[in-house]
Amino acid sequence: MLDDLRNGNRRTLARAITQVENRTPAALELLNTLYPYTGNAYLIGVTGAPGTGKSTLVNALTKHIRTQHKTVGIIAVDPTSPFSGGAVLGDRIRMQDLAGDSGIFIRSMASRGQLGGLAQTTADVVRVMDAAGFDYIIIETVGAGQNEVAIATIAYTVIVVDAPGLGDDIQAIKAGTLEIADILVVNKADRPGAENTVRALKTMLTLGHRQQYVAHHGRVMLHSAEAADIDTWEVPVLKTVALESKGMDELFTAIHKHRQHLQSTGQHEKRERQRLESELLDRLQHLLLERFLTEKVSPEQLDGLVRQIVIREIAPAQAASELIGS
Amino acid sequence: MLDDLRNGNRRTLARAITQVENRTPAALELLNTLYPYTGNAYLIGVTGAPGTGKSTLVNALTKHIRTQHKTVGIIAVDPTSPFSGGAVLGDRIRMQDLAGDSGIFIRSMASRGQLGGLAQTTADVVRVMDAAGFDYIIIETVGAGQNEVAIATIAYTVIVVDAPGLGDDIQAIKAGTLEIADILVVNKADRPGAENTVRALKTMLTLGHRQQYVAHHGRVMLHSAEAADIDTWEVPVLKTVALESKGMDELFTAIHKHRQHLQSTGQHEKRERQRLESELLDRLQHLLLERFLTEKVSPEQLDGLVRQIVIREIAPAQAASELIGS
Repeated sequence: MLDDLRNGNRRTLARAITQVENRTPAALELLNTLYPYTGNAYLIGVTGAPGTGKSTLVNALTKHIRTQHKTVGIIAVDPTSPFSGGAVLGDRIRMQDLAGDSGIFIRSMASRGQLGGLAQTTADVVRVMDAAGFDYIIIETVGAGQNEVAIATIAYTVIVVDAPGLGDDIQAIKAGTLEIADILVVNKADRPGAENTVRALKTMLTLGHRQQYVAHHGRVMLHSAEAADIDTWEVPVLKTVALESKGMDELFTAIHKHRQHLQSTGQHEKRERQRLESELLDRLQHLLLERFLTEKVSPEQLDGLVRQIVIREIAPAQAASELIGS
Repeated sequence: MLDDLRNGNRRTLARAITQVENRTPAALELLNTLYPYTGNAYLIGVTGAPGTGKSTLVNALTKHIRTQHKTVGIIAVDPTSPFSGGAVLGDRIRMQDLAGDSGIFIRSMASRGQLGGLAQTTADVVRVMDAAGFDYIIIETVGAGQNEVAIATIAYTVIVVDAPGLGDDIQAIKAGTLEIADILVVNKADRPGAENTVRALKTMLTLGHRQQYVAHHGRVMLHSAEAADIDTWEVPVLKTVALESKGMDELFTAIHKHRQHLQSTGQHEKRERQRLESELLDRLQHLLLERFLTEKVSPEQLDGLVRQIVIREIAPAQAASELIGS
């Protein structure tokens, strides 16, 4: 399977991703086997509030990258549900636009019902595409909620997309993603108010503390940027009209500059290390619980304890402490 | 502190919540001590896409509940950031509307930078309010992302708010929350298109499989409703104009009916058990990792392993297995 994958077999790729999503034993084995072949793709995160046109931007950026003869894998994480089937629909619309280009591979992922946790599954799917040899992998998420932030931080360069004339509620959602932006894009820049949006974003960047999200023990925690002296990346604010493919050259140049910045300051290595350490601890945690439940606690004991918690005889935290002490 | 809390001292309540948010040792002790006094409040979740007016709905519902001489605690979880300070702003606007009523207590929580994980912190804050004696506790979240779903499922009755005339992107976000709704509300029902929205929601309810979110090991997983025969709650679709306090009587009646349904079918007990079991396992998992890192692995060993992962010598999953096997 690994050979087929490395040789560009798309059916194998699609099948491997499905297995990874379903966490089959074969997939877990495959992930170990392909791991040595990962780390070569450049990972770009694209996030933004609803209505900013980020899917269109991803399409336009992809086409631009293709003019440089580089291959692109796209993972779209959608807030869809069994009710909407939106991920599949999105897939089809994209397919029409980017179809027939063997240098592009698109995969939509529903944001619900992922057994292993959405961020981990996304990271694993990225690895499969990485081993399959794609030069760039774009991870697209709706920029709302902690989970989406965690997903965006899988990427090396995070693009946060904004647009003029969005409502107040959208502004609130947007605010939550600003601090993870390496590049800010005002899309739909041919609309009235674009200059105001650019100015507002620049003001926010100046006022706000530049902060960094560091994934830790599987959780996203907020840290002030420690090494402000070396991390002096100034977040650019770019204007695009993705629907007309305008501004893609500047955007791709900014991505490239950021990539060089990460490399030259040693930030790339440092972040990669943090990501992988936190993944290791997260996996360790799950294995430890699994082992503990198998070897140290009988189902009856666990049941009895839960019953005590239900009737308010003992608090969950205390019960956990006592269980581990025994 | 517990006595002051139980006697309705608001300063103590505010201080206790801050400590819980900061996970101070005193707070963790307090949570164990107050646990026997919890389980009395009725927990209502309110979630909905941006622009649906769910904050206004929470205010109107709160005022309605107050006319029945019951007390209300509100926890608003906002997708805000250090940039926006939105949570504090939201607090002030609400305060103006509901101020001066000692039967109401409002607390905003930022959705970022929560050390213990947002869902767990929210659950703990609920417990503090519960022990403080509030009859109803309303948990308000923006309905987007897995985390928000996890938070909503802390509540016994989940209200999903919709409104006529929202954009397509919002529809997609909305779709993700439909399956957790116990009650659907079309707010801003005086606007054109309200009837269409009601009809669309009813169709979705009929078409869609009714599914259940079950928190498991701290993660939200999708299950088909197992016991379809006993869980025959029909999700009502109600119309409200929260700005004019219209439809609150019907909404509160529906909440009450759902509460009775949960009680009479044994669902309440079953769900509470699942929630508490999953919390116990989650806490256990964290303690196990803490202990393992303290007793079984030297920092040098961990460092070396991470280095091997970074240079692609060994995959994270494999490294975790080997570490635990040693």
